Amino acid sequence: MFVLKYVIEHPWHIIEEGYHPEDNRLYESLMSLGNGHMGHRGNFEEDFTGDSLQGSYAAGVYYPDKTRVGWWKNGYPEYFAKVLNGTNVIGIHVEIDGDTVDLGKIQPENFTRILDMKNGCLDRSFTYNVNGKSFDFKIKRFLSYDMVEVGAISYEITANNNANIKFTPYLNGNVHNEDANYDEFFWENCSQSCDNNMGSITMTTKKTGFTVHAATKSVLRKGSDVIAAPVSIKEDDKYIEHVFETDLKAGENVALFKYFTLVTDRDHDLNDLSVYGEKKLTDAYKAGFEKLYADHTAKWADIWKEADIEIDGDIAAQQGIRFNIYHMKQTYNGEDPRLNIGPKGFTGEKYGGSTYWDTEAYCLPFYLSTSHEQIPRNLLVYRYEHLEKAIENAAKLGLKGALYPMVTMNGEECHNEWEITFEEIHRNAAIAYGIFNYIRYTGESDYLVEYGLDVLLNISRFWADRVNYNPYKDCYMMLGVTGPNEYENNVNNNWYTNLMAAWTLEYSLEALEYVKNSNSKRADEILAKYDFIEDEFTTWKDIIDKIYLPEIEELDVFAQQDGYMDKEQILVSELDPADLPLNQKWSWDKILRSCFIKQADVLQGIFFLNERYDADTKKRNFDFYEPRTVHESSLSPCVYSIIAGEIGYHNKAYELYQRSARLDLDNYNNDTDDGLHITSMAGTWMSVVYGFGGFSTADGVPKFNPFLPTNWNGLNFHMLFRNRLLVVGIDKENVSIKMVSGEPLKN
Amino acid sequence: MFVLKYVIEHPWHIIEEGYHPEDNRLYESLMSLGNGHMGHRGNFEEDFTGDSLQGSYAAGVYYPDKTRVGWWKNGYPEYFAKVLNGTNVIGIHVEIDGDTVDLGKIQPENFTRILDMKNGCLDRSFTYNVNGKSFDFKIKRFLSYDMVEVGAISYEITANNNANIKFTPYLNGNVHNEDANYDEFFWENCSQSCDNNMGSITMTTKKTGFTVHAATKSVLRKGSDVIAAPVSIKEDDKYIEHVFETDLKAGENVALFKYFTLVTDRDHDLNDLSVYGEKKLTDAYKAGFEKLYADHTAKWADIWKEADIEIDGDIAAQQGIRFNIYHMKQTYNGEDPRLNIGPKGFTGEKYGGSTYWDTEAYCLPFYLSTSHEQIPRNLLVYRYEHLEKAIENAAKLGLKGALYPMVTMNGEECHNEWEITFEEIHRNAAIAYGIFNYIRYTGESDYLVEYGLDVLLNISRFWADRVNYNPYKDCYMMLGVTGPNEYENNVNNNWYTNLMAAWTLEYSLEALEYVKNSNSKRADEILAKYDFIEDEFTTWKDIIDKIYLPEIEELDVFAQQDGYMDKEQILVSELDPADLPLNQKWSWDKILRSCFIKQADVLQGIFFLNERYDADTKKRNFDFYEPRTVHESSLSPCVYSIIAGEIGYHNKAYELYQRSARLDLDNYNNDTDDGLHITSMAGTWMSVVYGFGGFSTADGVPKFNPFLPTNWNGLNFHMLFRNRLLVVGIDKENVSIKMVSGEPLKN
Repeated sequence: MFVLKYVIEHPWHIIEEGYHPEDNRLYESLMSLGNGHMGHRGNFEEDFTGDSLQGSYAAGVYYPDKTRVGWWKNGYPEYFAKVLNGTNVIGIHVEIDGDTVDLGKIQPENFTRILDMKNGCLDRSFTYNVNGKSFDFKIKRFLSYDMVEVGAISYEITANNNANIKFTPYLNGNVHNEDANYDEFFWENCSQSCDNNMGSITMTTKKTGFTVHAATKSVLRKGSDVIAAPVSIKEDDKYIEHVFETDLKAGENVALFKYFTLVTDRDHDLNDLSVYGEKKLTDAYKAGFEKLYADHTAKWADIWKEADIEIDGDIAAQQGIRFNIYHMKQTYNGEDPRLNIGPKGFTGEKYGGSTYWDTEAYCLPFYLSTSHEQIPRNLLVYRYEHLEKAIENAAKLGLKGALYPMVTMNGEECHNEWEITFEEIHRNAAIAYGIFNYIRYTGESDYLVEYGLDVLLNISRFWADRVNYNPYKDCYMMLGVTGPNEYENNVNNNWYTNLMAAWTLEYSLEALEYVKNSNSKRADEILAKYDFIEDEFTTWKDIIDKIYLPEIEELDVFAQQDGYMDKEQILVSELDPADLPLNQKWSWDKILRSCFIKQADVLQGIFFLNERYDADTKKRNFDFYEPRTVHESSLSPCVYSIIAGEIGYHNKAYELYQRSARLDLDNYNNDTDDGLHITSMAGTWMSVVYGFGGFSTADGVPKFNPFLPTNWNGLNFHMLFRNRLLVVGIDKENVSIKMVSGEPLKN
Repeated sequence: MFVLKYVIEHPWHIIEEGYHPEDNRLYESLMSLGNGHMGHRGNFEEDFTGDSLQGSYAAGVYYPDKTRVGWWKNGYPEYFAKVLNGTNVIGIHVEIDGDTVDLGKIQPENFTRILDMKNGCLDRSFTYNVNGKSFDFKIKRFLSYDMVEVGAISYEITANNNANIKFTPYLNGNVHNEDANYDEFFWENCSQSCDNNMGSITMTTKKTGFTVHAATKSVLRKGSDVIAAPVSIKEDDKYIEHVFETDLKAGENVALFKYFTLVTDRDHDLNDLSVYGEKKLTDAYKAGFEKLYADHTAKWADIWKEADIEIDGDIAAQQGIRFNIYHMKQTYNGEDPRLNIGPKGFTGEKYGGSTYWDTEAYCLPFYLSTSHEQIPRNLLVYRYEHLEKAIENAAKLGLKGALYPMVTMNGEECHNEWEITFEEIHRNAAIAYGIFNYIRYTGESDYLVEYGLDVLLNISRFWADRVNYNPYKDCYMMLGVTGPNEYENNVNNNWYTNLMAAWTLEYSLEALEYVKNSNSKRADEILAKYDFIEDEFTTWKDIIDKIYLPEIEELDVFAQQDGYMDKEQILVSELDPADLPLNQKWSWDKILRSCFIKQADVLQGIFFLNERYDADTKKRNFDFYEPRTVHESSLSPCVYSIIAGEIGYHNKAYELYQRSARLDLDNYNNDTDDGLHITSMAGTWMSVVYGFGGFSTADGVPKFNPFLPTNWNGLNFHMLFRNRLLVVGIDKENVSIKMVSGEPLKN
């Protein structure tokens, strides 16, 4: 069973019960809100002098921070794209009898902070005692999933004693990134306006020139009185405020409703931006809090209808899986093909950038099964749109074909560690695999004709240039790479990378055949566009035949890389627990030299090319690698869990699933205060649907080979498959597949 | 023969003839002045709006710049120590009839800038035409080698037309490092004073808190008139000036003498600093320019007496070798055991920090042969003083024993690339080898008793912890290292590192025996201090026996590292010359994957443990590795040159010597504008004395097995050996060894 460390068990809520300022950053991360367009950490609205990481983010708006500090290597990108903390739109300064409400100074009683995942909102309540008087606070905040540029807050105070209450809702553009170098301010060209009706701040990012317009308007409701006009307004540099004031008698109640909009010139013409934003704000204000909230929760109801997973008999597991689904849906709504899934979503600054190989390797299956097909397709088209930049990126390294970036916002590489940027090239294979996976799931082979083949051929061309023929051993090798296990750098012949490179070549040749057969004109056009000649494909075939895949012969397992067995062989179980997590306790040097594995590497290959390996092979490799794996990437346990389930290690599968599902909720890697591990949440989802559900589809028909963790009574999951909504029900005896909507499937 | 690219051939001078503002930074580097205590780039005194890198440095004064930008790894140092540009003390603003003299605006005629290496001064002369009038300028500057805190400038103008001349000598503390992040200013707590008599600026470095006091005083001499009082003075923030003015008639001549001092609280009590500095300035001023200059040149005469090398028949080679000796002596005078030899000396900001393994591997032999024994001994004691920090440094990586830093100012590591900081650990062996080399040269085995054994045992303890026993192959391996060839990172079993680690263990055990025999109490004391027990030494012996030294069996050569032969094997001669230097033309990825070698690696081991290898072995390894070496470290060609000479490749030896000797003069690696390659200059010296001179000493007697490059008529070199001054003369027929002073040597 789960041991709860931070939050209270609840099927639909994430609950902080009691006040825990020492873990405030953690709760802020867990309770982040987002709607694909914008997002906030679960910060308090009122002033707070305790420890907090303020975070207010707009999707696709980033700052290209300097990377050229210290040493430089040819081919490095010019910048590291940072997720950008923007105008604080949620702030409400509150005074009681002239004293500022600040939970950093006066500890509240009966404090709860709740993320309501069913309805997509953040609820907070507490009792605040000051100067011998007592007040009950109740606050609700949401970012509309229906009107994604709109957010609203209801901030309610009930007085147990007579008092004067002052609310000062404000916008504040004087914000920094905590990870800014030398506290650099990332915004410029700021303008603002404020009158009794509304206030706004417009700021433009340095270098990237994104303009973001924030506007706000508030209203006070006390009984039947609605007070729309502030008693005063004030402006300061990048700051506007409206002041509302009222006297409450004991037992009386007052609520401030703050509406805000965040609009950007990514979506609207710069010249119309403020007019548009203020119009939107007026619409929201006119609709009112209750209507906005109802439309918002209706959208969430739709999401859950198609994406929910119900676990019977294990509330913590239930909470964990919904937490993961919820945050995935907050981060990416699939409507803007220029966006992607950042590893921290809207929950923190860390890892900057938006797109990693996580998207194809982990997130795509989730969106394939929980969204309509246009959405996963948008994720693929995103890479097609970046193909020219990937070709440039390979050229910078002196290589042919396309090398997709490790981290990107707009197709350009924006990560600057050589061992990652230049060497963790297996990411390229994940992009090819994403195309394969999309087509396998949807049956839409024509994607190859329109977009897929261009990408595949150029990735394959890269692989063919990146390998070198070794005449002594008559094979093709790949030197100087970093595999998925980032606790090894610059190794030779990472098994996974070599495997997936050869697989990409194979699949690309198949794809080429498909396009030649179905649309030969288009095939010729593509071949001509990139100057492909037949000789090149002959070489590809030779590489497929002669790729070097290292093995540990005496154990009959695949070798993660050349020389892996020269390392001292110790198991994780033999480590002192005080040494974990290694990445916080050990020097990088010690980690690199050890045999310990950060995340699925050989196992990732077995997971991707599952059909190639028999159960014994899977078992031997699992038995060898799992005891050496520390799972210090959030992407690791889900893959191991799925393979464990497949080879009959059901308890192990459940143990690994726990680790994945509640990684953030239980702060396993002691880093949730920085933000959530968004992309790995999709992996958790996979370990339920692919793992416990035993889902697979090799031939256009969904198959399920399920098992239940022993402490679960039942598992239901909703999934979309080729325009059908299925609900798969598993209990201790039976499996049922219900088609809720769509045409019958033919086998 | 040399092809001169920048400077005019001259045995004692480095000459810029004609005005070359496009190469100004290059000439500024070449013509840097220094005296061990302070140094300047060869900047102009007067205002200059052209391209220039202003550089004024005080030895041992550095700024610990932030390194925590981007990604972070456990064990990284907190800072990267930067060489710090300080108060401009040489500045003289000059006006003619109210117009500022600026060679960036008006091109001078008959321009020459000369570094006079015999006398240690910088001479400049030119004709300046402005408003139809003409003036001859003659400027001499030196930093006294006799009073190292003093410098002086004579700035002389002869008028060919009547004119008003205004000199404004100043101090300016408003200086930046060009490599500062975000133009950060590195100084604080600045104070200043200025009166008719003198002016001063005192500034303290941020964080490190070094206080540097600069003071200046000037005097005007026109014929027999000496004008000591300025017509006016002025102060501004971190700026003081004195104004001198005179009218010249055609044919008349005026000279400004500017004296300055630079004193630091590294050498003097902070409270007395300004009093001391101003007293020193007064002394210098009273002595006068001519006397200061005479005392200064006398010191240089002494240096040349003991360190000169004369080459007959090749002026460019003559110039090259003196250039190297000269800059070595400017950089480090050996008097302060807290100082060391920075890779750029006082010639630029690049590479921050002061001490690399270059000191022991390259510089020590130079100082052993050209300085009295206390000076090389100071270099060794420097490391002894840092032993505790080296033990801490190893502990940070989770290892026992001592790991000396890759780059340091005060014993702490201050370089932050993991592949260097954590992995380029062969540096440790160079420090052990330095002790061995010092004792072999001087015969002072008792150094082991006093300082050496502590260092050796702790370095050995590090090696014994850093290797891992491989039970499958019954040997000790060293994984995850970077060898001297930095074009490979994180390799397994670098031959050089493994070799030198085992050698260190051997030598340490010998040293322990020596100390036990000569002073058993001291031996016991040391063993107790670091908790050594006999078992540990047993393990060391096992490691010595079973160290793994990779070989390329089919070629019977040592393998630079595991898997070297898996790389595509290409020779440098097969490269397009447009690809060179690789480090400017290729991506880091491509460099790492290639077989190309930056600098001597296997050959470095053969050079150090020369007696172990027969001529055939040296030849086979040279023949294999030299054609794969691009010599893109300044430390590379000298080692290859020496081995080439030894195996009879005389032309190759000379070719490689050329590359080393004139690296900066001819700007081979296209980076001299950043500063000079100071530490490699000692390597150049070695390639004359050890290479052409064939010097060796295995048994306390100097031996010479010389050869002359075919275009040289003769070679004489001066060297100190065990308190004797020798002059070795080599011509086409004969070798002579003259003992100029000291007792006869016994064989």
